[in-house]
This record gives sequence, C-alpha cells and structure tokens, in this order.
Amino acid sequence: MSVVQRFTLGDVLSEHRRGRPLDTAVVDGDVRLTYPELDDRVNRLAHALAADGVTAGERVLWLGQNSFRVLELLVACNRLGAIFCPANWRQSADELAYVLNDLTPKVVVWEESEAVEKARGQVTLDARWVRSGDEYESYLSGDTSEPAHADVLSGTPALALYTAAFDGRPNAALLSSTALISHSMSLLHIRQMENGFTFLACGPLFHVGTMMFTLATFQIGGKLVFTPAYEPKEVCRLIDAEKCTQAFLFGPMIDGLVEANKDGAYDLSSLHFVSHSPEWDKMITVDDSPWCASKMGGYGQTEVGGMLTFLGLGMGGAGYAGRPSPLVHVRILDADGSEVAPGEVGEICARGPSIFSGYWNRPELNEAKAAGGWHHTGDLGRREDDGTITFIGPRLRMIKSANENIYPAEVERALKSHPAIADAAVIGVPDDRFGQSPKAIVVLKEGETATADDVIEHVRGEIASYKKPREVAFVDEIPKRGYTPDYDALDEQHGGGAYPGS
Amino acid sequence: MSVVQRFTLGDVLSEHRRGRPLDTAVVDGDVRLTYPELDDRVNRLAHALAADGVTAGERVLWLGQNSFRVLELLVACNRLGAIFCPANWRQSADELAYVLNDLTPKVVVWEESEAVEKARGQVTLDARWVRSGDEYESYLSGDTSEPAHADVLSGTPALALYTAAFDGRPNAALLSSTALISHSMSLLHIRQMENGFTFLACGPLFHVGTMMFTLATFQIGGKLVFTPAYEPKEVCRLIDAEKCTQAFLFGPMIDGLVEANKDGAYDLSSLHFVSHSPEWDKMITVDDSPWCASKMGGYGQTEVGGMLTFLGLGMGGAGYAGRPSPLVHVRILDADGSEVAPGEVGEICARGPSIFSGYWNRPELNEAKAAGGWHHTGDLGRREDDGTITFIGPRLRMIKSANENIYPAEVERALKSHPAIADAAVIGVPDDRFGQSPKAIVVLKEGETATADDVIEHVRGEIASYKKPREVAFVDEIPKRGYTPDYDALDEQHGGGAYPGS
Repeated sequence: MSVVQRFTLGDVLSEHRRGRPLDTAVVDGDVRLTYPELDDRVNRLAHALAADGVTAGERVLWLGQNSFRVLELLVACNRLGAIFCPANWRQSADELAYVLNDLTPKVVVWEESEAVEKARGQVTLDARWVRSGDEYESYLSGDTSEPAHADVLSGTPALALYTAAFDGRPNAALLSSTALISHSMSLLHIRQMENGFTFLACGPLFHVGTMMFTLATFQIGGKLVFTPAYEPKEVCRLIDAEKCTQAFLFGPMIDGLVEANKDGAYDLSSLHFVSHSPEWDKMITVDDSPWCASKMGGYGQTEVGGMLTFLGLGMGGAGYAGRPSPLVHVRILDADGSEVAPGEVGEICARGPSIFSGYWNRPELNEAKAAGGWHHTGDLGRREDDGTITFIGPRLRMIKSANENIYPAEVERALKSHPAIADAAVIGVPDDRFGQSPKAIVVLKEGETATADDVIEHVRGEIASYKKPREVAFVDEIPKRGYTPDYDALDEQHGGGAYPGS
Repeated sequence: MSVVQRFTLGDVLSEHRRGRPLDTAVVDGDVRLTYPELDDRVNRLAHALAADGVTAGERVLWLGQNSFRVLELLVACNRLGAIFCPANWRQSADELAYVLNDLTPKVVVWEESEAVEKARGQVTLDARWVRSGDEYESYLSGDTSEPAHADVLSGTPALALYTAAFDGRPNAALLSSTALISHSMSLLHIRQMENGFTFLACGPLFHVGTMMFTLATFQIGGKLVFTPAYEPKEVCRLIDAEKCTQAFLFGPMIDGLVEANKDGAYDLSSLHFVSHSPEWDKMITVDDSPWCASKMGGYGQTEVGGMLTFLGLGMGGAGYAGRPSPLVHVRILDADGSEVAPGEVGEICARGPSIFSGYWNRPELNEAKAAGGWHHTGDLGRREDDGTITFIGPRLRMIKSANENIYPAEVERALKSHPAIADAAVIGVPDDRFGQSPKAIVVLKEGETATADDVIEHVRGEIASYKKPREVAFVDEIPKRGYTPDYDALDEQHGGGAYPGS
C-alpha cells in the first residue's frame, strides 16, 4: 500500500473541504463551522500541536465533556501521525492520574474539573496543558496550510479509547484510519446513512458507541451536532432546531425524551430512528434500515471499532447477534486455536480491516490478543446452524461446575423470563464438590414475591439442569458497569471466585 | 497491517461458507451451488492450480463467456496469491495472442472458439490449457481443504482487467482484494444492497461494470446468476425464475427487455432498478436508492475499481458526476501536479483504498500514473463551486487552438443540443495558424437538414466562440468503442492530429 491507496481521517476532511465547501460540518452551542472552516481550524491546531512536540506516535489527551474540539483534535493529530485519546472525564483523580501516566501525552486539553486538577498535581508529566475555551482558541496557530504528512499511512494508529480492564487495569485500544473508516463504511451501509445525515452526539465521545456514529457521519460529509451531555429537553431542542437524523439513544434515554416532549413542544419528526413505544413512534419517523429495523442488534467491542456483527444481516436467524459486518471474517475458536463446530461454544475471533492495532504499551497482552493471526475478543459465542452468531458472555466469566461449562448470560436469560424477576446476574462461587457452582443475584419486580426454590425450579424448566443456580441472593439493585452487571463487585459482595479462565 | 487486519476475497468466501451455509451462492444453467459447495470447489480448484505452478504472483487467464467459473477462478487464484484475468473472448486471434504474450499465464481456461485456437497456435507459452466443461470438472483436485495462505495479504493483486490503450496497446489493471472490497463497500452503500440481493450478470465479466456488481453481491453474501451473454428473452426468464434484484442493464438493453416481455409473460417485479420508460417502470419496481435514483450517474474507470464518483452523492449539484465515493479523495491537478482552483479544468487525480496497484508489467507507465502520490486518471474534470465534479473528457484528446484548451466533450454537448443533430463527435485537426482547430463530425436526425454554418453558429451561441468547430463533416454513423466515439478511427478518417497531449 503506497500513498496512492492512502485514505486517512485527514484525507476525509481534505476531500470534504473541496467536495462540501458550503455544507455545515459541526454545530456546538454558538459554534457553526462549514467543512472549509473546520479544515482551516484543524490545520491551525495541527501546527500548534507540532510546535509542542506532537510528532508521529505521540499522544494527545482530551479531558472534558463532548465538544466539536474532540473531532478537531482527532483529525489534527491524525495529520501529524499522532494518537488522540478522549478519556472519561468523570473518573476519580486516581483513575485520571493512571491514564496520564499510562498514555504520557505531550498535550492535554482539559475542561474545568476538580478531579482533573487533582490528578494533574499527582503526576510528573512533561506535557503542555491547554484549557478548553479561550485558552484553546488562542493556542491555535495562525497557519491554515495543511501540514505535510505523506508518511502518515492508513494503518497509522489515530484514536485511542480506554476499555474495561482485562487484567485489573484499563487499556487504550488503538484504532487506525483504516479501522475507523472501514467501520464507518459498515455503518453507512447497514444504517443507510445518506447525503445530508445529521447526527446528534449526545452520548459520551469517549465511548465507541457515540464515536462510531460521529465518525460515520463525518465520513459521508454530514452534519455533527455536539452537546456536552444527555439532557432530555436540550436533546429535544437540538433535534428540532438542527433537524437531526439520528442521535445516540437507548431505552431509558428515549423514555426521557418522550417525557420531556409530552407537550409536543418540539418537532422530532426529522429523527429516523428505532421503534420504541407508541408515544415515541408518533413523535419520530420510524426507520426501516437494517440497523433500525433490527433495533441496533449485534455484537461489538471497542477493539473492533464498534460492531463486529449486525442483527440486520441475519434477521429471523437463530443467533441474536446476526452476521459479521461485510468487512470481517469471524471464527469460533477453542483454547488451542482450533475452530469449533457450529452449535458449539468457543471464543469469538475475527480478522478484518476494522480490527484495532493493539493496546497502547501492552506488548504481551497484544501478542495474546492476536494469537495465531486472529483477534481474540475475550468473549464466548456460537455459530448457529444457519450461520448466525450468538454472543454468550465474557470468556473470563465462564463458570466450570463438575467439568461442565456454564455461561452466566444463558442462565441470566432464563432467570429474566420469570414473571416476578426484574433483573438478574449470575456469578460462580467456589464449591468443594463441583469446583464451582452458579449463584443467582436477583432483583424482584415491585410488589412481586418469589422464593429461592421458585427461582431455581424456573431455571431448571428453561435450560439444562446442571446450569441451575444452587443459591439465590435477593437484592434491591444490581451494580452496573455501563450496560452490563459489574461482576467484580458482585463477586466481592456475594463470594464469587474460582473461575477457570482467570 | 498484519494478518489480523487481513480481508481478502478468499476470506469473504471463508466467512460466507460459515455465515451462509444454507444460502445459494451461484446459479448458472443447471448449476446451483450453496456457499459451502462453492467454497469446496474453489479449494479443489486452488489445489489443482497450485499443482500446475500457480504460485504467488503467477497469472491465470479465462477466455470464454460469462460463467460461475470466473468467480471460482478469481477466488481460487486469490487464495494462492495469484492474479486472475477474465479477457475479452471476442477479440481477434492477433489480439488474443497479444494478451497471452503480455500476461504469460501459467493456466488458461478456455471455451471453444476459432480465434482462441488460432491464437494458441501463434504463441509459445509454457501454460496448461484447460477447456471449460468436462475437462475443467475433471481438472479440479479432490482436496477440499483450504490452502494455507497466511502470506496473502489484502494488498496482494487479485484481479487483472485489460483496459483501453493509452499508448497503442491495452494494459492489464491490477486490483487487489483491498481495492475490490473497498469498491464493493461503496456500492453496497450507494445501491443499498441488503441481505438477499440477487444480481444477474448479463453484461461481460471482463468489463468492470459487470464485475463490480458481481463482487459487491459476493461481498454481502447474495446470490449470483450467470448467463453467457445478454439475450433478452433469457434475461427476462432468469429475472422471473431467480427473483433477481438487479441486472447489468443500460438503455438499449432495457428497451430489448421491454420488447421481449411486451406480452407480460415474465414477472419482472423482483427487479429493483432504474426508471426508464413508462412500460419498463410498470414491469419492475423502481428503486429509490441513491444509485438508482441518480440513474447510475457518476464517473469511473477500471483503474479505480469501477466508480470514482457518484451522482447519488451530489444530486441537484452543478457537476453531473456528483461527489467522490466515501472511500476516495479527489484533487484536480495541473500538468505540474499543482491543484487548480474550483471551476478550472485539470486532470482528475485520486487517492484511496479502491485505487488499483498499477498495470501488469508496465513499470514506466505505472510511475507516471502515480506521479506525486496521486493516481492520474488521464481524464480531465472540474470541481464546481458547490464541490461536485464534472467530467470533461480524456486528457489526451484535448485540442489546443491558439493557446486555448478546447475539450471535445464540451463542444459535443453543444452540438447535440442542436435540434437536427442525432450524434456528434469533435476532433482536432492541424491548423497552420492556430496549431490545431476543432472539427465536428455530425450525424443528422432522419429527415432533418442543417448546413455547416448552421451548426457552427449554434455552437457559438452555446459556448465561447473560440471553441466552435471550423469545419463540419456530415456522416451516417460515428464509429464507437463501447459507449464513446472511436476517436482514433475518426482522426484517421477526418484528418485529425497534432494533439498537444500526445
């Protein structure tokens, strides 16, 4: 691959400044920039960063809420061959200090926060700190020329996103232009994102779920609307004012918009999105693209750029994760790296241009993740007989009881089908006789009752008997990490341990 | 890029054999193959080719009509790192001999033809000749295992397609898996090719126009229907029988289908295609994807994998070629490689993953085509003020008159707007005073009359006066090469010459 085949995030913007000279690229509060204006600012930023020693391979860190500056920083860094990381701003000072020491950025752009200031005091780092706002604006160089960057190729890492810990500490997944642009192409296709697509980034940009639609919208030269964080009234106002085609929204967030707009003050009909409730469906335009029709189903993780499989490519199939994106090849491998037969559970492994380049500064972990030339997701799954894929659960959370493998996700689904159960999680607890046995942590619906025996009997009726919990703990709430149970916390609270994978 | 990021044509089929075990991959006459059956045959073919010395970088040639074997050969060669070329079977024996000597294939698969047999006698070539049909079937090895090919990466050339001559001889453009798969992604997006897409390959597979939709359908795991060549009744029968979503069809071919199906014997409603005539629109389902809504508008060439720009990304814009595919960056450059301003004409140059890897065995030409790290298309174009692109015409056909550049395509459009003119082409003829001057070759509509002066005056009213023809020749028919005038023949017949680009 030579520079003729190159297509970086920097090139995407170079194209749009020429191809969309009149189109709005970003909206953020009072800021409105056309593509040429955005490109000028990105170049001015790149020259400023270069003057601070941001050369190929160096890192730049963003500590703040959502902002159009996140996109500027990403593309400016890419034009220098540097790596940009938007980190979770709401972390504790200790967690932020960890990120600073791990990533050793040359430049940190930050928004006012006690934790950030405290973390800054904890580290000794040779970095330039630039405060977002007036300081950032005066930091930009006056030079709008595009920096020379013929040596930056498509495979150069461009974005770093911290992911959940594998080994007790978070790791920064490095995604190249090739990975990000390939992933964007799969979203453009499955979501039918056409000319004029407008995306409201109201989820966190340090999370791949918001970032992936931000980048796909950028790819097609659409309009990006940034808002610091999810605030229902403001989200409604922005959808109406900017005629947004899509926003980063999940179940409870959607309910929040329905509530905020119950008087119909805002026109949300520009939103082409997922069907959710009768009230919601009346407010928006229900979209029939495979992404929306499948209710955004699939399987993904940061390390694959976002989604690895799409339910929209296997609607009606046996596996609820659907089929791989048109740009990846998935194989289900056992611990020796051999492929398992359809219907059997193994680790979901993949190849393709959207796969990440490894974690920043984790050579040993990277070797393990790429064993045998396959990206090992760390998650268990199964090819069904029709070729669709079922996601089972994290490999390290597998429970081994009397030599049988038990996957918490499967038991959890059986538990949740009980009419009195609102939420459930399953952990493995040490067992003298079987090595480990499953334990259910259960939240009952308001006003409902059930005994431990009721719950165990219900599961026995749904799935193989050896998978049934031997103990049940009733709790008021299950601790969460994002959208999944916080299993580490549950293990600690309920005596979990002795996992075979750990 | 390591093998973890790899995604070759071979990998596409590896995925589909697992992801679409029950789906039909190809239909061709009596042959119907599921994806696993196709994969088995491809592996058997690869083992047979390997035994004949087809190793990485070697070539395999197909001389025949459309067949599912073209797809088998392409993927089998790709799994060996070899290059597959489907050549124009209808060429003369001399032309075929040229291709054989130029490509020096290790294996030639051929269908019965006098010209092929004659060409075979003209060359001394150390190649295995395998006749399509029974001989091909018995040529396949018994080994269905996937050949080891960890060293074949996505950038390895996979397909060679001969293109029109630049320097008096045709050249084989080499397209890698990355180029072909990237291009497929742009078609999947713009054509909204979803799960279950069925494509009827009724145009020639040695032409990128048919090949690009064949490969995009393969990419999404759809069904490919092959027919030897365009035959209206048979095309209607196949659309009906196989419920085809799309076929390779242009204006006169569509008229042929309307005529062939005027009794409504065939149900063509599965076809989601371009609006054409009231009769046609009633037979099919008019499709509203950006590709079909824009009537397949855009600009392309074999060297970019097919399409470089899509009208569907710039509908209503000033430039009728629309905007670049989401995977390419276009710049309009002058002869020194500097970018020209919007509104000015220069050479259409591009970067991106869908750009070819150069021509087979043309090192000097390849260097010129990739000058400055930009693919030089050899075609002139212009960025309009709204960022859309207009294709002007081949660079080598530019006419230079008294130091002014005149582009035949522009003059031709002015000529064709005359009510009496059915067809027109413009060449440059040597001129003692101005170096060159434009000459119009004109076909009048039946029953219409016009003098040379009428024609010249009409053009003067449409475009700048210096661009008007100084001479007009009236002819019955303009010789064509594919869909464009055969300018070489016109130059010869009408005294053309002295082009500044040549």
